[in-house]
Amino acid sequence: MGKNLAHKLIEQHLVSGTMQPGEEILLKIDQTLTQDATGTMVMLEFEALGLPKVKTELSAQYVDHNLIQADFKNADDHLFLRSACRKWGLWFSRPGNGISHAVHMACFGIPGKTLLGSDSHTCAAGSLGMLAMGAGGLQVALAMAGLPFSLTMPEVIGVEVTGKLSPWVSAKDVILEMLRRYDVKGGVNKIFEYYGPGLDNLSAMDRHVIANMGQEMGATASVFPADDKVREFLQQQGRARDFVAQHADDGATYDAQDSIDLSQIEPMIACPSSPGNVVRVREVAGKPIYQSYIGSSANPGLRDFVIPARMVEGREVPQEISLDINPSSRQLLEALSSSGDLNRLLQAGARLHQTGCNGCIGMGQAPASGRISLRTVPRNFPGRSGTKEDQVYLCSPETATASALFGKITDPRDMDMDYPAFSEPETLQDMRPMLLAPQEIPVAVELEKGPNIQPLPEFEALPEALSGPILLKAGDNVSTDEILPAGTDILPLRSNIPAISHYTFCRIDDTFYQRAKQLDGDSFVIGGENYGQGSSREHAAIAPRYLGVRAVIAVSMARIHRRNLINFGIVPLLFRSADDLAQLEQGDTLSLTDLPNQLKNGRAVTVTTGAGKTLEVTHNMSAEEVATVIAGGLINKVREQDLGD
Amino acid sequence: MGKNLAHKLIEQHLVSGTMQPGEEILLKIDQTLTQDATGTMVMLEFEALGLPKVKTELSAQYVDHNLIQADFKNADDHLFLRSACRKWGLWFSRPGNGISHAVHMACFGIPGKTLLGSDSHTCAAGSLGMLAMGAGGLQVALAMAGLPFSLTMPEVIGVEVTGKLSPWVSAKDVILEMLRRYDVKGGVNKIFEYYGPGLDNLSAMDRHVIANMGQEMGATASVFPADDKVREFLQQQGRARDFVAQHADDGATYDAQDSIDLSQIEPMIACPSSPGNVVRVREVAGKPIYQSYIGSSANPGLRDFVIPARMVEGREVPQEISLDINPSSRQLLEALSSSGDLNRLLQAGARLHQTGCNGCIGMGQAPASGRISLRTVPRNFPGRSGTKEDQVYLCSPETATASALFGKITDPRDMDMDYPAFSEPETLQDMRPMLLAPQEIPVAVELEKGPNIQPLPEFEALPEALSGPILLKAGDNVSTDEILPAGTDILPLRSNIPAISHYTFCRIDDTFYQRAKQLDGDSFVIGGENYGQGSSREHAAIAPRYLGVRAVIAVSMARIHRRNLINFGIVPLLFRSADDLAQLEQGDTLSLTDLPNQLKNGRAVTVTTGAGKTLEVTHNMSAEEVATVIAGGLINKVREQDLGD
Repeated sequence: MGKNLAHKLIEQHLVSGTMQPGEEILLKIDQTLTQDATGTMVMLEFEALGLPKVKTELSAQYVDHNLIQADFKNADDHLFLRSACRKWGLWFSRPGNGISHAVHMACFGIPGKTLLGSDSHTCAAGSLGMLAMGAGGLQVALAMAGLPFSLTMPEVIGVEVTGKLSPWVSAKDVILEMLRRYDVKGGVNKIFEYYGPGLDNLSAMDRHVIANMGQEMGATASVFPADDKVREFLQQQGRARDFVAQHADDGATYDAQDSIDLSQIEPMIACPSSPGNVVRVREVAGKPIYQSYIGSSANPGLRDFVIPARMVEGREVPQEISLDINPSSRQLLEALSSSGDLNRLLQAGARLHQTGCNGCIGMGQAPASGRISLRTVPRNFPGRSGTKEDQVYLCSPETATASALFGKITDPRDMDMDYPAFSEPETLQDMRPMLLAPQEIPVAVELEKGPNIQPLPEFEALPEALSGPILLKAGDNVSTDEILPAGTDILPLRSNIPAISHYTFCRIDDTFYQRAKQLDGDSFVIGGENYGQGSSREHAAIAPRYLGVRAVIAVSMARIHRRNLINFGIVPLLFRSADDLAQLEQGDTLSLTDLPNQLKNGRAVTVTTGAGKTLEVTHNMSAEEVATVIAGGLINKVREQDLGD
Repeated sequence: MGKNLAHKLIEQHLVSGTMQPGEEILLKIDQTLTQDATGTMVMLEFEALGLPKVKTELSAQYVDHNLIQADFKNADDHLFLRSACRKWGLWFSRPGNGISHAVHMACFGIPGKTLLGSDSHTCAAGSLGMLAMGAGGLQVALAMAGLPFSLTMPEVIGVEVTGKLSPWVSAKDVILEMLRRYDVKGGVNKIFEYYGPGLDNLSAMDRHVIANMGQEMGATASVFPADDKVREFLQQQGRARDFVAQHADDGATYDAQDSIDLSQIEPMIACPSSPGNVVRVREVAGKPIYQSYIGSSANPGLRDFVIPARMVEGREVPQEISLDINPSSRQLLEALSSSGDLNRLLQAGARLHQTGCNGCIGMGQAPASGRISLRTVPRNFPGRSGTKEDQVYLCSPETATASALFGKITDPRDMDMDYPAFSEPETLQDMRPMLLAPQEIPVAVELEKGPNIQPLPEFEALPEALSGPILLKAGDNVSTDEILPAGTDILPLRSNIPAISHYTFCRIDDTFYQRAKQLDGDSFVIGGENYGQGSSREHAAIAPRYLGVRAVIAVSMARIHRRNLINFGIVPLLFRSADDLAQLEQGDTLSLTDLPNQLKNGRAVTVTTGAGKTLEVTHNMSAEEVATVIAGGLINKVREQDLGD
């Protein structure tokens, strides 16, 4: 009985635990990735650990989120991150180099390695045969310190891929089909491992698209083999020597099985406002649009821009349509310029934006009121575009471009032309010289902290008893974008918890901050299914904790956010059913007594309401997690540990 | 005795008045230009006039300022402007086409015509032998309605240009030399007319740089002849047929005379925080920098990007330096891409931004705290970059690039290479197909007004008496950037006076809004020399008026802002000397009685202070201006007029 690739990768990095789904395992982390919106906090955390140098094989810090410098804050953060990289031996990628996931894949991705990143789409590197996962920033800081990563052993779903994509259908349609099947929580505690003959028809970049948005199913990771397609990719990047074949054993088995026939996939689209709300493009065709947005880590490949360029060649996008082009990397922008494809886009009326995450995280390009935006980005959570009550659809570059040309949602198969041919160039401009390499001989470097960079608040240990009001009752699938939004105003505050806490839950209830400050005491948040889906931002745990939230009780929780809650001392509890949630209202008082003992000694926790009723909720924390939350968070806990130097 | 060109242009457009310096004249306006940050208000004003169509030969609306769509507001404004253009017969230039002045010059500039624009740098079109001026939005709206433009007849300064620029010295150094001589108010009520053999060595785009920043001297306009250089420019744009030679008569005379020998000019730089604070680059060389910013309407030419590209070719900008490239137009970006210069910049580590005004009006690219930014933009007023206490220097693309390569302010003559050769391409991509042309047969168009687009407040007529406190005492050279800042947060509120009024004077005193709301009555602002320099934004008059400011008393005032005050019913008064200003303090109460009669019947106005002292101030308004301010502003006044249809 052969092993699947996910199991082989885990086994090669297993520090402790057994590979039984649901068991806690510890994994050695080879590489880390941080971006600027989460990275400033990671560096502050790493500073608190007091180590002279990162202990990974490779750690890289990218600047791709906070590129709009409305004032000093973002620029100061960039300089801080650069100084931290010089001090502790990380690679630093400056603004303009591109999106972390695309640049990391091009410069540093190595088959067989583990990668942990403080960005939820770190999982994209599964495209290269890596075990790549997003995590909260603090866990990445600890991985940088050489500590293993704690994880619930996931189930591995084998997805056999057969067939070949039809013209006008591309990788985004594949992952949208998966999202149609699994919705936004069908992948929780699962790894999707893709294998089979159809993979010969998917390039490494196509696989990046699929692995990237595995995150939207809630999956722990997505894994592809490292085969000839991966070898070709590394050759193109001048890194053929980094290739190491990675495959499942013959006859490998999986915890569950699925299959996908590429030839059967049609153009798909995720309707507002969930990546799981997927239908065929045909079903919503004809709706007038305002915008088509091409780019982001969920469609970062050269083909994702060249095919649109060939589609618009000699045509013009109607004046009322905004066709927004967001290059994913410096390398890609150079290639588009060299090939003439950039000018094809410009001459058709497209708007070229700077290289980076941009509108995908609400940094510009928000749509007009009540208008439809089509985007190749991974997420369409409510308001993430920057516009309240937005109508964002997720689709392939082909669908976005056809729709821009016709001014309405259009199945790209309705274009009156042949599907443009695309072949990958033999080589691309090497991006590594554009990054600042770690210094061989460490030099004394002062951290450069601008006035907006504030230390992480100290949090106390969990008390014996907690009592306070339910400060917010939230619904299902609440994303971290709703707990603590991104966007041009809020992202620059990521290195300043007191300042950013003003925006906590503002998308759901803009009185939350005022009510929390008025209370000035312990409180609770309750929610439905899949609480905390989306981005890995740990600020969505730190800011509520800073405002006094001591426990979140939900029907179910997304993996990364659940762990972020634990990391900062918020107790994650689970309702036994949605009925229990229905019995509670915002404003109700809750009391929990003998809490540390209850957490340590079983799965059940008793909650007493103000009306005197009792309710039994549960927790699914490992012993390590319980110890962490009792300590008041992971920083308090690791302070007791000897990290060496 | 021959006529100078400025006089010939004025004479050809004179509707009434005599061409004696200081007299009020009315001029026929052939073309208008509006940009989005001022244009939404212009369109609301034009709507209030009730006309079916613009009456100019050509009016064009550009979208170049509010390009960062953090939420729905800017996108809504773009759609509103597009609908207004379709309704009333203007050209519409969508986001991504570029900066109004560069695009207008390329697409529509015609020698011998008058151009009025709701952007202070409209004067750049003087480079083509046009009489081009910036004005408040309401005056542009009235010009669109076919009304003549009222102006104080300026003096004409003849500037004889001789010689040829040395290598590494370019047009920006010429205008910086002029600013060194005239400072930021030496050009008030003056037209600078350039002539002489040295002009053969300045391209039309070089002249654009010089004419553009004539505004920074406070000049009414700058005028160049339409000669072979202009013919070449129009040929390059496929518009040779639009060429009409424009020259001063032989033996033309001027009100005053200056001269400039191009061969004697060295690299110059304007130090923080005034465009008039000019020294030789050598005098400040060696200071470490954070950023070099290339672009804006003050250096929009192809050469301004190609020469930097050739300077950085094969080199790399140090990792800690941000080299920001801001293309001025779609045409320019295409040309840079075709010629390989875009990739030269990218490979050296430059960051490419979207086409438009961007950081020049505080839309991103703000420098880090306490760091030096070098910019080819026209202005370095305090905080305009977005960073408080910024250190922005203005210089040529050559100086900016050399400084970026060395990481410190560097005289470009210290580069270890030959000055790169540049020759203009024969033709450039025609941009007009990228603009929405006015429809030949008008169609019924609904104005598309998003929720942020609010009507202009109604203002009452001037009362007999005014009494209230001095709500702010300001210093010398207060710019409209300090009266009402731009930037990512504030610019999107330009179509919403109640919302934008919160930021009135916030750069000088962030309690102003609260104090004005608390007072809830009439108030005064006093200031020193050159009050209201800089941008043409009429919001710097409307918002104070909305908050109850009824008169501004200053030692002297900038032309466009002074007229904006009148246009919205704020009385512009002048101290007889700075000593009178020194006698008054913020908080003092002022009373003015029998005000309309005092304004109508002489130049003197008596002010009584709370302490009972009297002070005589003056005004320099024409009869038309007095009538306007008494009516409570120009909209009230023109409502009585028959505009035809």
